[in-house]
Amino acid sequence: MKIARFSHGETISFGIIDEEEHELVVLKADPMFAGYEPTGERVPLAEAKLLAPVIPRSKVVAVGKNYHDHAAEMGGEAPAEPLLFLKPNTSVIGPDDAIVLPPQSERVEHEGELAVVIGRIAKNVSEADADKVIFGYTIANDVTARDLQQRDGQWTRAKGFDSFCPLGPVISTDVDFVNGTIETSVNGVRKQEGRLADLVHSVPAIVAHASSVFTLLPGDVILTGTPAGVGPIVDGDTVEVTISGLGVLSNPVRSAG
Amino acid sequence: MKIARFSHGETISFGIIDEEEHELVVLKADPMFAGYEPTGERVPLAEAKLLAPVIPRSKVVAVGKNYHDHAAEMGGEAPAEPLLFLKPNTSVIGPDDAIVLPPQSERVEHEGELAVVIGRIAKNVSEADADKVIFGYTIANDVTARDLQQRDGQWTRAKGFDSFCPLGPVISTDVDFVNGTIETSVNGVRKQEGRLADLVHSVPAIVAHASSVFTLLPGDVILTGTPAGVGPIVDGDTVEVTISGLGVLSNPVRSAG
Repeated sequence: MKIARFSHGETISFGIIDEEEHELVVLKADPMFAGYEPTGERVPLAEAKLLAPVIPRSKVVAVGKNYHDHAAEMGGEAPAEPLLFLKPNTSVIGPDDAIVLPPQSERVEHEGELAVVIGRIAKNVSEADADKVIFGYTIANDVTARDLQQRDGQWTRAKGFDSFCPLGPVISTDVDFVNGTIETSVNGVRKQEGRLADLVHSVPAIVAHASSVFTLLPGDVILTGTPAGVGPIVDGDTVEVTISGLGVLSNPVRSAG
Repeated sequence: MKIARFSHGETISFGIIDEEEHELVVLKADPMFAGYEPTGERVPLAEAKLLAPVIPRSKVVAVGKNYHDHAAEMGGEAPAEPLLFLKPNTSVIGPDDAIVLPPQSERVEHEGELAVVIGRIAKNVSEADADKVIFGYTIANDVTARDLQQRDGQWTRAKGFDSFCPLGPVISTDVDFVNGTIETSVNGVRKQEGRLADLVHSVPAIVAHASSVFTLLPGDVILTGTPAGVGPIVDGDTVEVTISGLGVLSNPVRSAG
């Protein structure tokens, strides 16, 4: 099942995507909190503007260097434990929203990633129970000012600018971890390519680890790491991240000026 | 003026502290959003349990190495620009709540700090205008698992555990940056001592810098850095951070087990 948050006219709603009819089955409220009760209304997908499918009330947790080939291209190895960092919820944008290049950086890069959306309060969850606290999956771009990341040491500024966390286009309750692939392209040219099966730390391992540190809250999002091939994006580019079964997260890039 | 968030019986309210009468003037709602409208009720301070005066809806921003003497004790220098990191809102606790030592760390340390509470949406604020977006000031303890901070490189886990951001006891709309001092004691023995005038990057400079990266939201909190003298806290300790005019933030320490 695929869930979207969307605007239609003046109204923002949640809906379930009917892929055969190309329609949204409108829900009475956020299904994370209110279940899947339809209003009876349907909206053609072509008339809806999809929004970030979740706005984290607490945090976006991210995992660094979680593909061996990306750890290698950054000049290191994947850490033995998931390496956690935070992106603020003010960095979240939705599908087709612009990634805005900040004047402080001369090199902003794409990092396409699978994102996990947490659906329940979770603390010290075991790997075996991780599924029970996961609401679904979406696509993320962990946009990074590479020059500031290297200069600061701490990654907070480099990864925390407004617009540096595109999420969407929808939340899917399932994802194919066996055969699923992730690709990132810039202006239609493929730059990053990986298999979800190649995540160094699996999603259950990441959820268990993160929840041993922080209480995870419904709506928290966890980015699971990017494969090799990160590279620059500049004013006028369009960056697209595609994950099998989850769709395409597309965002234009523009300068702040 | 000093503002508290407190529980009294079953009710959580905001109030203004009447220091002469040792009472709380109860407010109708959170003054950050609703102004200072009293209900007419008064509660004796002795009957109220003070809570964290703010729960950030978005982020706790913190600044590393912002006193020269602390930067030196950590083996470095204060950075030319404020070095930002984030603590999640799930790490916030209030006065007298326990700092819980996580089993993952063998060395948890206190870092007493002045905290700035943001009151308005703020993006690219100038130093001259920083005052206009500040709601007030409170005391924070940037509790840190020093061993994990050193092991991880990124500070997120080490500074992000539940209970690692005590805030309180109140928000004061003013603080004395000329003569104000900050002290941290453990079990009554003074460990850290500094002058607010010795902050390397001033509060207006920090607000300007942070708001050039993130949009700051009402209720966001910025920790401004700790002076020299950081050191361990263990099960059974009581750690107190005192700032002139802001009161004392006291928290017991206990093991997770």
